[in-house]
Amino acid sequence: MAFKFEVVTKFGELSENAKGWKKELTLVSWNERDPKYDIREWDPAHEKMTKGVTFTAEELIQLRDILNEMEIE
Amino acid sequence: MAFKFEVVTKFGELSENAKGWKKELTLVSWNERDPKYDIREWDPAHEKMTKGVTFTAEELIQLRDILNEMEIE
Repeated sequence: MAFKFEVVTKFGELSENAKGWKKELTLVSWNERDPKYDIREWDPAHEKMTKGVTFTAEELIQLRDILNEMEIE
Repeated sequence: MAFKFEVVTKFGELSENAKGWKKELTLVSWNERDPKYDIREWDPAHEKMTKGVTFTAEELIQLRDILNEMEIE
C-alpha cells in the first residue's frame, strides 16, 4: 500500500504499549488531502501505524461532549 | 470472519452518514471477552460495522482530558 501522510499536529498520547507503540490523537493529512483528526497507534519512529478512525471537527466535538457526560470506570 | 459481539452500552452518536450508518461510542464485548470501549461506524440494524478502535477506561480518560484542552475548529 503506497500512500503519503503528514502528521500536522499531535495533540496527545492515550497510551503506550510494551513495544513503544503509542495510541495518539493527531491531525493527519492523507495523500495530501485536507487534514483529519485521527486516533490510531504509531510505532516509535512514527512511520508505521495500525488501522484507526478519523474524525471531522464536528465528530470530535460530539465525542468530547459525550465523554464529559460519562462516568468512565 | 465469524465472531460474536454484544453491545453492552451505547453512550452516544458522533455522526450519521447518508446511508444511515452511525459513528458511535459504545462498550462492546467481542467474543464474550471483557467489554471494551469502542468507536466505529454501525449500520442502522447494528449488525454490520466498519473497522474501529477500542479503548481501555484509562485511554478514554486520557482522550477526554486531551479533548478538553484543545480548541477544536
